[in-house]
Amino acid sequence: MVVKVYGPSYASPKRVIALFIEKGIEFEVVDVDVFKAENRNPDYLKLQPFGVLPVIQDGDYTLYESRAIMRFYAEKYKSQGTELLGKTIEERGVIEQWLEVEGHNYQPPLYDLIVELLFGPKMGKTPDEKRIKEDEEKLVRVLDVYEERLSKTKYLAGGSFSLADLSHLPFTQYLVTSLEKEYLIRDRKHVSAWWDDISNRPAWKKVLQLYPPPF
Amino acid sequence: MVVKVYGPSYASPKRVIALFIEKGIEFEVVDVDVFKAENRNPDYLKLQPFGVLPVIQDGDYTLYESRAIMRFYAEKYKSQGTELLGKTIEERGVIEQWLEVEGHNYQPPLYDLIVELLFGPKMGKTPDEKRIKEDEEKLVRVLDVYEERLSKTKYLAGGSFSLADLSHLPFTQYLVTSLEKEYLIRDRKHVSAWWDDISNRPAWKKVLQLYPPPF
Repeated sequence: MVVKVYGPSYASPKRVIALFIEKGIEFEVVDVDVFKAENRNPDYLKLQPFGVLPVIQDGDYTLYESRAIMRFYAEKYKSQGTELLGKTIEERGVIEQWLEVEGHNYQPPLYDLIVELLFGPKMGKTPDEKRIKEDEEKLVRVLDVYEERLSKTKYLAGGSFSLADLSHLPFTQYLVTSLEKEYLIRDRKHVSAWWDDISNRPAWKKVLQLYPPPF
Repeated sequence: MVVKVYGPSYASPKRVIALFIEKGIEFEVVDVDVFKAENRNPDYLKLQPFGVLPVIQDGDYTLYESRAIMRFYAEKYKSQGTELLGKTIEERGVIEQWLEVEGHNYQPPLYDLIVELLFGPKMGKTPDEKRIKEDEEKLVRVLDVYEERLSKTKYLAGGSFSLADLSHLPFTQYLVTSLEKEYLIRDRKHVSAWWDDISNRPAWKKVLQLYPPPF
């Protein structure tokens, strides 16, 4: 049974696709055009009642929320492809910690910047400069903690690439290539080396080649 | 080795304490007074560099982010006390999905309401009525999805109480007892029955008795 992933053009579904490629899991994609509000179609809302991306279908098993999908497949195919959940439950605990940091501290201000500076203007909205400034300040505080952490360990959760690092790829890619804010990464020696390492993984390059972001 | 939990007065650490009681894990608490900025003390920041609660210390193992701590102990003591992660990886997948929904859809507008209506005024800030209205609208949309879901399954992730339900307890308790917005729960038949069920669990009643919220 090939897993179907909805919405490959967008950022969050790319977490799932990167994981599938890292693990060697077969998948197919189903396009969803958010700019045509296809994520608000009744058929889509039956799969994902909040109308957000991604959702996967694996036979009669349906699952949404990118980080939940990643955890499920990283566990289901634990011994196949790249090990992403650690070797012990203590290691997994630290991976979960940084995955939560990504979800609660890193992504929210970065997502907001992407909405203000990329999606909003495409919908005819004027960027809110005060909000942009606040988001960037929040992101700076998070990246300062990352810099300190990455001065001690090669990856966020320790010596090995994990789900916590992988989860940063799609939105950081926007920060670097579309928002013209690459300096936030490059101003920090260890964050910069980490970004070079994780963004050059063959799986991530393959994701960008197969499903280039819409802008 | 008894696990130390920092900040038992506040909401997020109560997730961890409720889990410890459900699982029968011994713990002790360390008070942290956020209103005296003790969460910004250098010693605290060494344990939790973002200056937020909770953090745990278990011998030389330190972990933060309440949902990561819960996952770690629910896995470590899988066969002890209440089973909170499901019997199969498919069940765990659905639990993880609703745990992510709680973290990304439910908690952010509710947390914001608590800051605007409870914490802010205590610090001398005037509530932002526009923001309060937007947060409540967001919460209504999430609770409408919960109502539909809970009309089909007794708990969010299926027939059994899980980490996903438990994670809702501390902030929903504020909604019901301090924000005077209990109607958001009571207007929805299935959400209301679910809240009565989960908030009457002995573990949760014990948490509130041991560590009453500051207001």
